[in-house]
Amino acid sequence: MVITSLVLPATLSATTADFSLRRAEPRDLEAIVRLLSDDAVSASRGDTADESDLEAYAAALAELLADGSNELVVVDDAEGDVVATMQLTSIPGMSRRGSRRLLVEAVRVSSSLRSGGIGSAMMRWVTRVAAPSVGASLVQLTSDEARSDAHRFYERLGFVGSHRGFKYHAG
Amino acid sequence: MVITSLVLPATLSATTADFSLRRAEPRDLEAIVRLLSDDAVSASRGDTADESDLEAYAAALAELLADGSNELVVVDDAEGDVVATMQLTSIPGMSRRGSRRLLVEAVRVSSSLRSGGIGSAMMRWVTRVAAPSVGASLVQLTSDEARSDAHRFYERLGFVGSHRGFKYHAG
Repeated sequence: MVITSLVLPATLSATTADFSLRRAEPRDLEAIVRLLSDDAVSASRGDTADESDLEAYAAALAELLADGSNELVVVDDAEGDVVATMQLTSIPGMSRRGSRRLLVEAVRVSSSLRSGGIGSAMMRWVTRVAAPSVGASLVQLTSDEARSDAHRFYERLGFVGSHRGFKYHAG
Repeated sequence: MVITSLVLPATLSATTADFSLRRAEPRDLEAIVRLLSDDAVSASRGDTADESDLEAYAAALAELLADGSNELVVVDDAEGDVVATMQLTSIPGMSRRGSRRLLVEAVRVSSSLRSGGIGSAMMRWVTRVAAPSVGASLVQLTSDEARSDAHRFYERLGFVGSHRGFKYHAG
Protein backbone atom coordinates (compact mmCIF):
# COMPACT_ATOMS: atom_id res chain seq x y z
CA MET A 1 0.00 0.00 0.00
CA VAL A 2 1.20 3.52 -0.70
CA ILE A 3 2.30 5.69 2.19
CA THR A 4 -0.20 8.37 1.21
CA SER A 5 -2.89 5.98 2.47
CA LEU A 6 -2.00 7.02 6.04
CA VAL A 7 -4.96 8.72 7.72
CA LEU A 8 -3.75 12.15 8.86
CA PRO A 9 -4.02 14.25 10.93
CA ALA A 10 -3.98 11.90 13.94
CA THR A 11 -4.27 12.75 17.62
CA LEU A 12 -1.33 11.80 19.87
CA SER A 13 -1.94 11.54 23.61
CA ALA A 14 1.15 12.36 25.66
CA THR A 15 1.52 12.57 29.45
CA THR A 16 0.65 16.22 29.74
CA ALA A 17 -1.54 17.05 26.76
CA ASP A 18 -2.83 15.98 23.36
CA PHE A 19 -0.94 16.81 20.21
CA SER A 20 -1.85 16.63 16.54
CA LEU A 21 0.30 14.74 14.05
CA ARG A 22 -0.09 15.87 10.42
CA ARG A 23 1.68 15.92 7.05
CA ALA A 24 4.35 18.61 6.76
CA GLU A 25 3.68 21.51 4.39
CA PRO A 26 6.02 24.03 2.74
CA ARG A 27 5.19 26.58 5.46
CA ASP A 28 6.76 24.22 8.08
CA LEU A 29 10.25 24.63 6.59
CA GLU A 30 11.74 26.88 9.26
CA ALA A 31 10.17 24.98 12.16
CA ILE A 32 11.61 21.68 10.88
CA VAL A 33 15.06 23.19 10.34
CA ARG A 34 14.91 24.60 13.88
CA LEU A 35 14.07 21.14 15.30
CA LEU A 36 17.00 19.57 13.40
CA SER A 37 19.44 22.12 14.84
CA ASP A 38 17.94 21.77 18.36
CA ASP A 39 20.00 18.60 18.86
CA ALA A 40 23.71 18.28 19.64
CA VAL A 41 24.34 15.24 17.41
CA SER A 42 22.58 16.77 14.38
CA ALA A 43 24.29 20.11 14.91
CA SER A 44 27.66 18.33 14.87
CA ARG A 45 26.75 16.98 11.40
CA GLY A 46 26.11 20.45 10.03
CA ASP A 47 22.42 21.01 10.79
CA THR A 48 22.89 24.40 12.45
CA ALA A 49 19.90 26.22 10.88
CA ASP A 50 22.34 28.53 9.10
CA GLU A 51 20.54 31.05 6.86
CA SER A 52 22.74 30.04 3.89
CA ASP A 53 21.50 26.42 4.09
CA LEU A 54 17.81 27.37 3.85
CA GLU A 55 17.70 26.96 0.07
CA ALA A 56 19.04 23.39 0.29
CA TYR A 57 16.50 22.54 3.02
CA ALA A 58 13.66 24.07 0.95
CA ALA A 59 14.66 21.96 -2.08
CA ALA A 60 14.81 18.82 0.09
CA LEU A 61 11.38 19.58 1.58
CA ALA A 62 9.88 20.02 -1.90
CA GLU A 63 11.37 16.65 -2.99
CA LEU A 64 10.06 14.96 0.15
CA LEU A 65 6.54 16.33 -0.24
CA ALA A 66 6.44 15.17 -3.88
CA ASP A 67 7.82 11.67 -3.13
CA GLY A 68 5.17 8.96 -3.02
CA SER A 69 7.29 6.61 -0.87
CA ASN A 70 8.01 9.15 1.84
CA GLU A 71 5.95 11.01 4.40
CA LEU A 72 7.39 13.84 6.46
CA VAL A 73 5.16 14.49 9.47
CA VAL A 74 5.11 17.22 12.11
CA VAL A 75 3.45 17.40 15.53
CA ASP A 76 1.52 20.55 16.55
CA ASP A 77 0.85 21.55 20.15
CA ALA A 78 -2.47 23.10 21.25
CA GLU A 79 -1.27 26.53 20.04
CA GLY A 80 -0.48 25.15 16.58
CA ASP A 81 3.29 25.38 17.11
CA VAL A 82 5.39 22.60 15.55
CA VAL A 83 7.09 20.71 18.40
CA ALA A 84 8.29 17.49 16.74
CA THR A 85 8.96 15.87 13.37
CA MET A 86 9.91 12.55 11.81
CA GLN A 87 10.22 11.00 8.36
CA LEU A 88 8.69 7.69 7.27
CA THR A 89 9.69 5.71 4.17
CA SER A 90 7.68 2.71 2.94
CA ILE A 91 10.01 0.15 1.35
CA PRO A 92 8.97 -3.06 -0.44
CA GLY A 93 11.46 -5.92 -0.22
CA MET A 94 12.18 -9.55 -1.02
CA SER A 95 13.72 -10.65 2.28
CA ARG A 96 11.72 -11.96 5.25
CA ARG A 97 9.34 -13.62 2.76
CA GLY A 98 8.65 -10.47 0.78
CA SER A 99 8.04 -8.09 3.69
CA ARG A 100 7.38 -4.41 3.32
CA ARG A 101 9.23 -2.32 5.90
CA LEU A 102 8.69 1.15 7.29
CA LEU A 103 11.90 3.12 7.82
CA VAL A 104 11.86 5.91 10.42
CA GLU A 105 14.41 8.72 10.06
CA ALA A 106 15.10 12.07 11.70
CA VAL A 107 12.90 11.79 14.80
CA ARG A 108 13.20 15.12 16.61
CA VAL A 109 11.25 16.54 19.58
CA SER A 110 11.69 20.14 20.74
CA SER A 111 14.26 20.16 23.59
CA SER A 112 11.82 22.06 25.83
CA LEU A 113 9.31 19.19 25.61
CA ARG A 114 11.57 16.12 25.81
CA SER A 115 10.65 13.38 28.30
CA GLY A 116 7.02 14.54 28.15
CA GLY A 117 5.84 11.48 26.24
CA ILE A 118 5.57 13.02 22.76
CA GLY A 119 8.31 10.80 21.32
CA SER A 120 6.69 7.68 22.79
CA ALA A 121 3.29 8.68 21.43
CA MET A 122 4.82 9.25 17.98
CA MET A 123 6.54 5.86 17.94
CA ARG A 124 3.44 4.05 19.21
CA TRP A 125 1.52 5.65 16.33
CA VAL A 126 4.23 4.40 13.94
CA THR A 127 4.19 0.80 15.19
CA ARG A 128 0.45 0.47 15.90
CA VAL A 129 -1.16 2.64 13.21
CA ALA A 130 1.22 3.59 10.41
CA ALA A 131 2.95 0.23 9.89
CA PRO A 132 -0.28 -1.81 9.64
CA SER A 133 -1.84 0.91 7.45
CA VAL A 134 0.87 0.59 4.79
CA GLY A 135 1.15 -3.20 5.15
CA ALA A 136 4.60 -3.11 6.78
CA SER A 137 5.45 -6.02 9.09
CA LEU A 138 8.75 -4.47 10.14
CA VAL A 139 9.61 -0.99 11.43
CA GLN A 140 13.29 -0.08 11.40
CA LEU A 141 15.51 2.84 12.31
CA THR A 142 19.10 3.55 13.21
CA SER A 143 20.25 5.67 16.11
CA ASP A 144 23.72 7.17 16.58
CA GLU A 145 25.76 5.17 19.13
CA ALA A 146 26.20 8.50 20.96
CA ARG A 147 22.47 8.52 21.79
CA SER A 148 22.36 6.03 24.66
CA ASP A 149 19.17 7.60 26.11
CA ALA A 150 17.47 7.14 22.75
CA HIS A 151 18.55 3.48 22.67
CA ARG A 152 16.85 2.78 26.01
CA PHE A 153 13.80 4.69 24.76
CA TYR A 154 13.46 2.48 21.66
CA GLU A 155 14.03 -0.69 23.69
CA ARG A 156 11.21 0.27 26.08
CA LEU A 157 8.93 0.59 23.04
CA GLY A 158 9.74 -2.96 21.92
CA PHE A 159 12.46 -2.26 19.36
CA VAL A 160 15.41 -4.67 19.31
CA GLY A 161 18.90 -3.27 18.63
CA SER A 162 19.98 -6.34 16.69
CA HIS A 163 21.92 -4.56 13.94
CA ARG A 164 24.94 -2.37 13.34
CA GLY A 165 24.21 0.73 11.24
CA PHE A 166 26.92 1.63 8.71
CA LYS A 167 27.24 4.96 6.87
CA TYR A 168 29.47 5.90 3.97
CA HIS A 169 29.97 9.54 3.01
CA ALA A 170 29.96 9.68 -0.76
CA GLY A 171 31.21 13.27 -0.58
CA MET B 1 17.39 12.38 -9.18
CA VAL B 2 15.28 9.29 -9.63
CA ILE B 3 16.82 5.89 -9.11
CA THR B 4 15.83 4.81 -12.61
CA SER B 5 18.54 7.21 -13.84
CA LEU B 6 21.14 4.55 -12.93
CA VAL B 7 22.98 3.35 -16.03
CA LEU B 8 22.55 -0.42 -16.17
CA PRO B 9 23.82 -3.00 -16.97
CA ALA B 10 27.27 -2.22 -15.53
CA THR B 11 30.41 -4.38 -15.57
CA LEU B 12 31.85 -5.42 -12.20
CA SER B 13 35.48 -6.53 -12.08
CA ALA B 14 36.15 -9.05 -9.31
CA THR B 15 39.37 -10.90 -8.48
CA THR B 16 38.74 -13.86 -10.74
CA ALA B 17 36.43 -12.64 -13.50
CA ASP B 18 34.10 -9.93 -14.72
CA PHE B 19 30.42 -9.96 -13.83
CA SER B 20 27.47 -8.01 -15.13
CA LEU B 21 25.18 -6.06 -12.79
CA ARG B 22 21.67 -5.42 -14.14
CA ARG B 23 18.10 -4.64 -13.10
CA ALA B 24 16.19 -7.68 -11.83
CA GLU B 25 13.32 -8.99 -13.98
CA PRO B 26 10.33 -11.21 -13.15
CA ARG B 27 12.24 -14.25 -14.54
CA ASP B 28 14.86 -13.79 -11.76
CA LEU B 29 12.36 -14.66 -9.01
CA GLU B 30 13.62 -18.15 -8.18
CA ALA B 31 17.29 -17.19 -8.38
CA ILE B 32 16.77 -14.32 -5.93
CA VAL B 33 14.78 -16.49 -3.52
CA ARG B 34 17.56 -19.09 -3.69
CA LEU B 35 20.19 -16.44 -2.82
CA LEU B 36 18.12 -15.27 0.17
CA SER B 37 17.88 -18.81 1.54
CA ASP B 38 21.59 -19.47 0.85
CA ASP B 39 22.44 -17.61 4.08
CA ALA B 40 22.16 -18.82 7.66
CA VAL B 41 20.94 -15.53 9.14
CA SER B 42 18.25 -15.03 6.49
CA ALA B 43 17.15 -18.64 6.74
CA SER B 44 16.69 -18.17 10.50
CA ARG B 45 14.27 -15.31 9.70
CA GLY B 46 12.11 -17.50 7.50
CA ASP B 47 13.72 -17.14 4.06
CA THR B 48 13.98 -20.86 3.36
CA ALA B 49 12.88 -20.83 -0.31
CA ASP B 50 9.82 -22.85 0.68
CA GLU B 51 7.52 -23.52 -2.29
CA SER B 52 4.53 -22.16 -0.35
CA ASP B 53 6.23 -18.75 0.03
CA LEU B 54 6.80 -18.27 -3.72
CA GLU B 55 3.57 -16.34 -4.22
CA ALA B 56 4.50 -13.80 -1.52
CA TYR B 57 7.97 -13.40 -3.06
CA ALA B 58 6.47 -12.95 -6.53
CA ALA B 59 4.12 -10.24 -5.25
CA ALA B 60 7.02 -8.48 -3.51
CA LEU B 61 9.13 -8.65 -6.67
CA ALA B 62 6.33 -7.12 -8.74
CA GLU B 63 5.98 -4.28 -6.20
CA LEU B 64 9.72 -3.67 -6.20
CA LEU B 65 9.98 -3.59 -9.99
CA ALA B 66 7.11 -1.07 -10.16
CA ASP B 67 8.48 1.17 -7.39
CA GLY B 68 10.25 4.30 -8.65
CA SER B 69 12.29 4.76 -5.44
CA ASN B 70 13.70 1.23 -5.43
CA GLU B 71 16.00 -0.75 -7.66
CA LEU B 72 16.53 -4.46 -7.21
CA VAL B 73 19.70 -5.53 -9.01
CA VAL B 74 21.22 -8.92 -9.77
CA VAL B 75 24.72 -9.95 -10.84
CA ASP B 76 25.22 -12.44 -13.70
CA ASP B 77 28.33 -14.54 -14.17
CA ALA B 78 29.79 -15.27 -17.62
CA GLU B 79 27.27 -18.11 -18.12
CA GLY B 80 24.35 -15.75 -17.36
CA ASP B 81 23.66 -17.36 -13.98
CA VAL B 82 22.51 -15.02 -11.20
CA VAL B 83 25.18 -15.11 -8.47
CA ALA B 84 24.35 -12.05 -6.33
CA THR B 85 21.64 -9.51 -5.57
CA MET B 86 21.01 -6.34 -3.60
CA GLN B 87 18.32 -3.71 -3.21
CA LEU B 88 18.85 0.05 -3.40
CA THR B 89 16.40 2.70 -2.15
CA SER B 90 16.85 6.39 -2.92
CA ILE B 91 15.54 8.51 -0.02
CA PRO B 92 15.27 12.31 0.09
CA GLY B 93 15.66 13.86 3.54
CA MET B 94 15.88 17.08 5.54
CA SER B 95 18.76 16.19 7.87
CA ARG B 96 22.43 16.73 7.05
CA ARG B 97 21.41 19.92 5.20
CA GLY B 98 18.83 18.27 3.00
CA SER B 99 20.87 15.23 1.94
CA ARG B 100 19.55 12.43 -0.23
CA ARG B 101 20.66 9.00 0.98
CA LEU B 102 20.96 5.64 -0.73
CA LEU B 103 19.86 2.71 1.44
CA VAL B 104 21.32 -0.73 0.65
CA GLU B 105 19.34 -3.79 1.75
CA ALA B 106 19.53 -7.54 1.25
CA VAL B 107 23.05 -7.87 -0.15
CA ARG B 108 23.55 -11.55 -0.97
CA VAL B 109 26.32 -13.36 -2.84
CA SER B 110 26.12 -17.06 -3.73
CA SER B 111 27.91 -19.04 -1.01
CA SER B 112 30.06 -20.81 -3.65
CA LEU B 113 31.52 -17.48 -4.77
CA ARG B 114 31.99 -15.65 -1.45
CA SER B 115 35.40 -14.01 -0.78
CA GLY B 116 35.94 -13.81 -4.54
CA GLY B 117 35.56 -10.04 -4.64
CA ILE B 118 32.02 -9.85 -6.03
CA GLY B 119 30.61 -8.21 -2.88
CA SER B 120 33.42 -5.64 -2.85
CA ALA B 121 32.89 -4.86 -6.53
CA MET B 122 29.13 -4.43 -5.89
CA MET B 123 29.67 -2.06 -2.97
CA ARG B 124 32.32 -0.05 -4.83
CA TRP B 125 29.78 0.38 -7.64
CA VAL B 126 27.23 1.58 -5.06
CA THR B 127 29.52 4.15 -3.44
CA ARG B 128 31.37 5.33 -6.57
CA VAL B 129 28.73 5.09 -9.31
CA ALA B 130 25.20 4.65 -7.98
CA ALA B 131 25.29 7.19 -5.12
CA PRO B 132 26.69 10.08 -7.23
CA SER B 133 24.30 9.13 -10.07
CA VAL B 134 21.22 9.64 -7.91
CA GLY B 135 22.66 12.64 -6.06
CA ALA B 136 23.08 10.80 -2.73
CA SER B 137 25.84 12.08 -0.44
CA LEU B 138 25.30 9.27 2.05
CA VAL B 139 25.09 5.48 1.61
CA GLN B 140 23.69 3.54 4.55
CA LEU B 141 22.93 -0.04 5.48
CA THR B 142 22.44 -2.16 8.57
CA SER B 143 24.03 -5.52 9.17
CA ASP B 144 22.97 -8.10 11.75
CA GLU B 145 25.28 -8.10 14.80
CA ALA B 146 25.75 -11.84 14.11
CA ARG B 147 27.59 -11.00 10.86
CA SER B 148 31.02 -9.99 12.22
CA ASP B 149 32.75 -10.91 8.94
CA ALA B 150 30.38 -8.61 7.08
CA HIS B 151 31.14 -5.78 9.52
CA ARG B 152 34.87 -6.02 8.79
CA PHE B 153 34.05 -6.16 5.06
CA TYR B 154 32.05 -2.91 5.20
CA GLU B 155 34.72 -1.19 7.31
CA ARG B 156 37.41 -2.10 4.76
CA LEU B 157 35.25 -0.39 2.11
CA GLY B 158 35.14 2.84 4.10
CA PHE B 159 31.80 2.43 5.89
CA VAL B 160 31.66 3.56 9.52
CA GLY B 161 29.57 1.53 11.99
CA SER B 162 28.48 4.61 13.93
CA HIS B 163 24.86 3.60 14.53
CA ARG B 164 22.71 0.98 16.27
CA GLY B 165 20.06 -0.56 14.03
CA PHE B 166 16.69 -1.19 15.71
CA LYS B 167 13.88 -3.38 14.37
CA TYR B 168 10.31 -3.72 15.55
CA HIS B 169 8.14 -6.59 14.37
CA ALA B 170 4.69 -5.16 13.72
CA GLY B 171 3.33 -8.69 13.38
